[in-house]
Order: sequence, then structure tokens, then C-alpha cells
Amino acid sequence: MRYSQFPLTTLKETPAEAEIVSHQLMLRAGLIRRLASGLFTWMPLGLKVLRKVEAVVREEMDRAGALELLMPAVQPAELWQETGRWEQYGPLLLRMSDRHDREFCFGPTHEEVITDVARRELRSYRQLPVNYYQIQTKFRDEIRPRFGVMRSREFVMKDAYSFDMDQEGLQASYQKMFEAYTAIFERLGLSFRVVDADSGEIGGSRSQEFHVIADSGEDAIAYCDDDNYAANIESAAIERPAEARPPAKQPLESVDTPDVRSIEALTQFLNVRPADTLKTLIVEGDEGPVALVLRGDHELNAVKAQKLPGVRSPLTMAGADSVRAATGVSPGFVGPVGLDMKTYFDHATATMADCVAGANEEDRHLTGVNFGRDIEETDTVDLRNVVAGDPTPGGNGTLSIARGIEVGHIFQLGDKYSRAMNATVLDSNGRERAMAMGCYGIGITRIVGAAIEQNHDEQGIVWPAALAPFDVVIVPINMDKSERVRTAAEELYRELEARNIDVLLDDRAARPGVKFADAELIGIPHRLVVSERNLDAGELEYRHRRDGESRNLKRDEALDLLPNG
Amino acid sequence: MRYSQFPLTTLKETPAEAEIVSHQLMLRAGLIRRLASGLFTWMPLGLKVLRKVEAVVREEMDRAGALELLMPAVQPAELWQETGRWEQYGPLLLRMSDRHDREFCFGPTHEEVITDVARRELRSYRQLPVNYYQIQTKFRDEIRPRFGVMRSREFVMKDAYSFDMDQEGLQASYQKMFEAYTAIFERLGLSFRVVDADSGEIGGSRSQEFHVIADSGEDAIAYCDDDNYAANIESAAIERPAEARPPAKQPLESVDTPDVRSIEALTQFLNVRPADTLKTLIVEGDEGPVALVLRGDHELNAVKAQKLPGVRSPLTMAGADSVRAATGVSPGFVGPVGLDMKTYFDHATATMADCVAGANEEDRHLTGVNFGRDIEETDTVDLRNVVAGDPTPGGNGTLSIARGIEVGHIFQLGDKYSRAMNATVLDSNGRERAMAMGCYGIGITRIVGAAIEQNHDEQGIVWPAALAPFDVVIVPINMDKSERVRTAAEELYRELEARNIDVLLDDRAARPGVKFADAELIGIPHRLVVSERNLDAGELEYRHRRDGESRNLKRDEALDLLPNG
Repeated sequence: MRYSQFPLTTLKETPAEAEIVSHQLMLRAGLIRRLASGLFTWMPLGLKVLRKVEAVVREEMDRAGALELLMPAVQPAELWQETGRWEQYGPLLLRMSDRHDREFCFGPTHEEVITDVARRELRSYRQLPVNYYQIQTKFRDEIRPRFGVMRSREFVMKDAYSFDMDQEGLQASYQKMFEAYTAIFERLGLSFRVVDADSGEIGGSRSQEFHVIADSGEDAIAYCDDDNYAANIESAAIERPAEARPPAKQPLESVDTPDVRSIEALTQFLNVRPADTLKTLIVEGDEGPVALVLRGDHELNAVKAQKLPGVRSPLTMAGADSVRAATGVSPGFVGPVGLDMKTYFDHATATMADCVAGANEEDRHLTGVNFGRDIEETDTVDLRNVVAGDPTPGGNGTLSIARGIEVGHIFQLGDKYSRAMNATVLDSNGRERAMAMGCYGIGITRIVGAAIEQNHDEQGIVWPAALAPFDVVIVPINMDKSERVRTAAEELYRELEARNIDVLLDDRAARPGVKFADAELIGIPHRLVVSERNLDAGELEYRHRRDGESRNLKRDEALDLLPNG
Repeated sequence: MRYSQFPLTTLKETPAEAEIVSHQLMLRAGLIRRLASGLFTWMPLGLKVLRKVEAVVREEMDRAGALELLMPAVQPAELWQETGRWEQYGPLLLRMSDRHDREFCFGPTHEEVITDVARRELRSYRQLPVNYYQIQTKFRDEIRPRFGVMRSREFVMKDAYSFDMDQEGLQASYQKMFEAYTAIFERLGLSFRVVDADSGEIGGSRSQEFHVIADSGEDAIAYCDDDNYAANIESAAIERPAEARPPAKQPLESVDTPDVRSIEALTQFLNVRPADTLKTLIVEGDEGPVALVLRGDHELNAVKAQKLPGVRSPLTMAGADSVRAATGVSPGFVGPVGLDMKTYFDHATATMADCVAGANEEDRHLTGVNFGRDIEETDTVDLRNVVAGDPTPGGNGTLSIARGIEVGHIFQLGDKYSRAMNATVLDSNGRERAMAMGCYGIGITRIVGAAIEQNHDEQGIVWPAALAPFDVVIVPINMDKSERVRTAAEELYRELEARNIDVLLDDRAARPGVKFADAELIGIPHRLVVSERNLDAGELEYRHRRDGESRNLKRDEALDLLPNG
């Protein structure tokens, strides 16, 4: 492609609207343009990248034997009512009515539609297994769209759905997708981790997420390579510690703590460690408020908490007024001693003694709080986020924490949808059986953002080879003045095109510095400079975007460094 | 592909819901499945065809220098309000509100969005010309979706938008698209015509449609190859005839015509030719009803009529009550003699004499109606649809009428959108100028239906080579019983795959008749049969779907008849 036929419009300034680097660079490099909140146009340069992602995904899905189809974006409410999700899904679902006042939504996912296709199309065990997939535009009406294409409202997804006779078949289909996803992210050249995950609103028994590792990731990942363990922190489990509780040393005392409402303030005021304090959180429950008690330095894990009996899901913190109504005291002074309420204690409290806790009296805390004496000993539960240094569930290692961007998610759904929608086939004995389903998503548009979060520097994007919009950029120096440079650049361009290499010839009448800066911003992996001086020597100046080192090489040597088209 | 990995589900019966042959065959061949009214899932076999259409369109658009991008499907109301189309577009526009009660639509077309992109991206004449295109899912909330993918609500379109400095540039961009479209439909192997068309709600000065010729087409096309003329009947103009009006011979008389309310009834009752009657239609106008008078055997052309001064657009026939209120008589007895109303006469009335017309009295008509005596001679206008035998506008030939399916439409928009949305660039003198725009659409999904309407027989679809989901089907006879047949079929399959031919191996344990019928229904161009008998002779049975003649040929001879992959 020639610049004169493929205009780029790069920006020097960082747009103020963009919070994270991938969003900034995608705007600056002209990959996307904003239409409205959470809606983006993929400009020609950005679409080239997107298509490369799609091609890799399609090839690996086809290789795994999945069949591509294309379902409508607009879905009738009736199907969502069959599974109960029309009500459950909430405001993320963009709803609309047609001219006849029939209700529809812009599909955020296609479990209902594919199950409808499958119950009409699949009748016998002989037709199974089948795995249908599509690459398609979806919509989630995010309350706060942000981070560019990473949390946009309209986005492109690859979604696949497998149908098997039984759990054993489902596991085989799931394993194939696990391998396909691994191949996809390896081919894309991304550093990623597979983690155990919570299945959330999609449901089902087991799920794993594929995360691109990046400091800006929205998700925290707990992992231990020694123990071959990785999980989204949402679902990383932690057991009750094996150690026994130390004996009580201090008497229970009530101390004055005027206006001390946070763990941080408390530890400063009383000069104690956060790990010696108890944090008592009040959440809404099915029959009145419920107390959740954690070690002061630990964070509540909402996904774990909302699965506890009697706790409302999604987890909802009680407001200050309901806390006062239930405990007689402001939220900052609630504690477990004498608290008349259903109370859950986190496992980590099982090894604590001589603790500091709210006194259930305004502006007062208790010190020397001890279990078995001041608080009844009870079973503890897993309530908190794991932290670096925690033991792995297997117990053979300790956890590290990394941040990741979720780009893929695979689920064993089982018969949740097939049973609700009566998607059955006849088994070999002629009996109707609900099919076992899996579903498998990849965020196509999100991958582009995630790749940039992981691969950039001060100058711009540093594309992995598989994602680069162009493999090579040719920068002729003073092409408009030197016929010799023009001829050599054109010849080189044609030669690379003939080798099927995706090459951009920067044929602008612009200063070399401008061309170099654009090529770096856009992140083209290989750069070849053609100038009078290196033509004299029969050379080309070669530079790779990643190492940034320019070298004058014999023409053939330079060309040998380029990829095969 | 092997049948065992690419299951087809064909139907023997013709689905009752499908009115036309392409819809019937697409359902029977398993290309599509219905989700809801006007919403279809493209099954794997159908998607293969759709992708072939897309690939041809993309190649020719790229070759013409157009740049592919991808705009959101969901569009903010504000942009449509800038051009006034938010109100004008009516119920075809699927509207919705997001969680913040902001209004959006599911885009049926993208003039507003691309003009917004262009006004941000394009600043100088140096950046022009530019032609952006996308292949994308669109939605029109049709009042009566029908004909399968030919008039579905959700559909895939290629839409392109060119930006130029002036009308001269626009004409060059338009001409390029004309040539690209011609190349596309030729490559797709479709018999088509380019016709002059009305620009309708899109607007602009000039437009042409590309029609696939098929008896079931919704549009009538007037053409004359001798005079190199073709137009959609909506916009095919006809001049005032050159001949003079014959002199009046009959006196004006009022005759009793009880309950004779149609031209057909009138001609039977009075034994006159339809061409000697005058048909008077009452339509709504800006200042009360307007009369339109045509020769009795001619059809009113709504597109022409609604452009006349004082006539309401879109054309709206007056109800029986308003006709009675305006004329004192029921619609069947209205006539131009003594009619006190704005009246337009069609050109064809200019050569009529001694006519029959409604008497403006209940159950009565007039005979011997003559212009200049009973009706004032006035200028006539073009009000009717042309018919076969009419002269061409150039006057050098006569028109024929064919039926067509509109699959492409190209428009010279001029500055309609760029002016409304202030999409300007600086010209070479540093002055702001609204860009000259063109827009160019192709109905990707519709092409599949249109191709079948044009190419089918009793047995099923007869794909043009470029559209066939598979080039070749291999049918082994008794593969499950004969190891020799199995080995030969597998070998042949691998050989064709290696030649990059899109081949389907029907490896089912089914009767040959079932396999033959499916291959014909699906419309695969080349069929090779492998059997014990023809293996003995070193032969293959070859048959082309179009001529339907089976021949035993030496293996090499048969393979020579296949396309290059």
C-alpha cells in the first residue's frame, strides 16, 4: 500500500478523553475514531489489525472442527424469556420494540439463539458433537463505557457453542477449545495466562478465562507456576489455615476512639497492626442484614460473599441508615462482640487473638477481643481476596498476583440452556436427552487494545508480528528530489509486494523525521530506509521496531530479515 | 470438507412460509434458518456463499482504491437530527433508548455517520478524493418482511461513500464505482442490467441501480438495447406524443352506468376500448385534493406524481369519504369534465378524442368527452408507468419491460449531507468548501437470494461458479462396503484439496440417490462419482450441475474439467 492511497491521520497530542495507553495510542495512530460513548469507528488502519485477529481466530476454530455460521444481532424477547434472562440480565441488555411493538434486544451473547437453532437442527446423537461459532457484532449497554475498545458498548466477538450428548463429550469439546484458544493467543504473540474463573451470569459448572497480562488490566490474577495454579482473584479459593489459634493474653477493654471510622485511622490511633483488627461489614440479606467479618488488612471478595446462604446476590452493602437501624451505631463502630445478627467470619480470623474491633457504641472500639471468650467460636468461611504470599489451594506453593485483561472465556454450561429451552436429541436407545453445552468467547476488538497495553513504548505501539497492520514500512529520504531514491524505493516496494509482504511505502513529500515518528507510532515491525547515501553503498538501513537499533546492511541481508509473506 | 465434519440438513418438503423459489430453496438446502420475522441465521453452508460474495465485492472495492473501515451499527439520534432524517425516515428506522435515555437507531444506512467521520478526518483538498466502504449488518424495520433474505429486516450491506472537492471529482469517483460494480456482478456470473433510478429518500442528483434479471423481481425495468437505454420503471420518463389530437366526432352524452366503478367494468358495459377511457384518481395535496387523469389502460406512477407541485409526498390516495366531500360523488364516477379541483393530465391524454369518463354523478358516465370542447386544453405532464412498445426518451427505439431484483444502487449525492452537517475542507485557495459526496450500496445478503432466483431448476439451486459453496462434490458409491472405493475417493479428495479446490466428500453411509439429490439441491457445479465399475475402467463419472449430463471419463480428463483452485 502507498501512503498516497492509504492516508493515515496521526495525532501528536494525547487526547484528553483517553485514560489508558491503548486508548490513547489507538486514537493517536488513527486506528479508531469515537462516534459516541462506547461506540467507535474502526478506521482503515485499525480494521487491518482487527481482520488479522479475526483471521487467526477463524483458522484455529476451523482447524478445531468448529462450523462458522452467522446469527442475527437482533434477538426476540421470547427466547430470553424461555431462559428467564430477559428479566435477570438487567440494564446491560439494550432493549427495543419494533413497529409492531414486539420486544427485541441487541444481542450481548447468543446462548438463547443458538439453542433455538440447535433444537430445530439437531435431532439425533448421530449428529453430535457439533460446535457452531460466529464472529459478530454485539452490544452491552455498559453503565460507564471506557478504555476505548476494551470496554466499549458495541464490540466484535467470536462466540462458539458446543453440543454434546453428555458431560464426557462436553469435556472433550471443552478441551478442544482450550487448545484452540491457547494456539490463538500463542499465534497472536501475546503473553497470557489461563485462569480458573467464576461463571457469573452465563452459568454452568466450570469456566476458565484467558488473560493478556498487563499492568493496566482490570482483573487481578492469583497464580503459582510451581503449583501450576492460576485463578481470577474473584474465584481464587483460600482454605482455613492449619495453625491453631494463639491463646488470649489481653482482657477485653472498651476504648475511646472519637471519629475513628476506618481501619487505617484505627491502626494509627491505637498503634496496632491492621492484621490485628477485625473489619465488620454489613450487607443486605434475604432476611435482614448480615455481618461479614474479615481481618482488617483483607479485602472482601464479593463473588464469594454473594454465594453464602442468606446473602443477597448481587452483593449489596447496607447503607449507613440500615446499619444504624440494625446495630444502633454508625458503620465505623460496628463489631462482632454481642452483635445480634447472622454473622460470617472469614477463615483468616481463625488464627487471630487479642484483636481490635468496633464496640457497637458510637466513637468506641474494643481491644483484647478473643474468640471462644468474647465471641463464640464458629465455622469460618472463605470471604476474602487472596493476596501475594497466600498458599495455593494445593498447598505446594505460594501465590503471586498479576494483572490481566480478559480476552477469552470458556464455559462448561451443562444443560442449563438446553433444559430450559427443551433442546433434546434422541440417544442411541431412542430416549430424549437434553444436550450438554459449552460456550466459548473471544473479545476480538478487545484483543487489539489488550495487545497494545502489553506492547508499547514511549514512541507508540510495538505490534507483535501477527497483529501489525503492515509488516514493513519503506521510508525513502527526499524521494521528491532524488529520482534515484524514488526508483529504488518503488522497485523495493514492488519486490516486497510480489513476495506477498504487507508493505507500506511512505511516498509523502514529508520530512524523514515525520515519517519515522509515524511509523513508530503505528508500530510497524520492520523499517527500511532508502537514501542516496546507502544506495551508493548498495545498502539499506534496517531497523526493527522492538529493538530500535538502526543498521546499514547489504540489500540482500536486510531483505533476509523480513518475514515471509 | 467431509460431510461427516460439515453436516448438511436438507429438507424434502417445501416450507409453507416461503413464497418465492429462492426462499424455498435456501430453507430446503439449509443455507438459512428463520429466527423471527425478517431475521435469519446463516447456517454454515449459506455463510460459505455469503463469504464468497463478500470476497468478490471486497477485492473489487480495494482494486478501485476504496478504503475499508467499520462503523458502529448503533447510531446516535443527534446525527440524524442534523440532517432532518430522524423525523423523515419514519418507522423503517428501528429506534431505541440506552440506559441513560439517550436515543439511538440500528443503522439502515450510514450517510450521517460517515459524514461525521469525514468532517473530523478530512481538512484539506490534498486529502481528497477518498472513498470509504464497509461490509456490515444493517436493519430496516420492514412493515412486511418477506421473500427470505431478499426483504429481510436484518441484512448485510456493502456501503461506500466518496468525498470529492467538486462535481467533476464526484463524477470521476462515481464512474469508478460504476466500473467496480460492473466487474463485481460480472465476476459473480449474474445476468444484470444497470438502470437509471429515482434517488428516493437518500437524495442527490443522479442515481443508477444494478438489477439481477429474474421473473420474480419486485421491480420493473424499461429498456431498449438499440438505444442503449435502461431505467427503473419508477423513473422511466415518457414525453408528450408528437402526434396531433384527432378531431372530435361524437357529441357529449351522459349514460347510465349503474354500479360500474372500474375501467374493466366500464369497458365491458359500454363495449369500448380501455384506451378510449379516462381514469381520474384523487390524491391528497398541500391545499386540498388533486385530480390525476390518465388513459384508462395506463398505470399511475407514484414517484412521478409525488414530485408535482401541490401533490403530497409520499403520494397518498384520497379516501372514498374525502373524494365524496370534494366531488359529491363516489370514486368510481369521478371525471374531469366540470371538476372543480387542481387537475393534472397525463401526456397520453394529448392524443385522445371521444373519450369515456366519469360524469361526477352517481352511477353515470360521459361518452364523447373531448378536449378543447368539454375540457379545457392544458399542458400535460408525465404521470404514468411506461409500457412495452413506448418510445425511448431518445426516440430511436421502443421499450421492452423486464423484471429485476435491485442488488446495487449508486448515487451522486452532491452536498446534501456535507452541507447539512458542515463537512467542509479547505480548497487550494484556503476557502472552506462542502465536499461533494457519492454513496454506493450493494445488498450482500440479497445477492444470494437474487442469484438463486436467476439460477435454479426443478432439482434445486444451480450456482454460478463464483458463488457455489463447494466447487466439486465427490460421491463414492457404497464407500462403506468397498475398501477400494473408499481408498480411491479419499485419494481423490486429498488431491483436489491439495489443488486448493473447494471440495465436499459425501462420506455418509447413505444411498447414492440421496447423495445425488442433496448435491443437486445444494447446487454444487461439478460432481464426480467413484464406483467399483468406473474404477475398473480407470474412469470417473463426471456431471456438471448445469447441463446435467453424466459422462464416464478417464480420470485425468475428468479432473481437467474442474476449476483451478
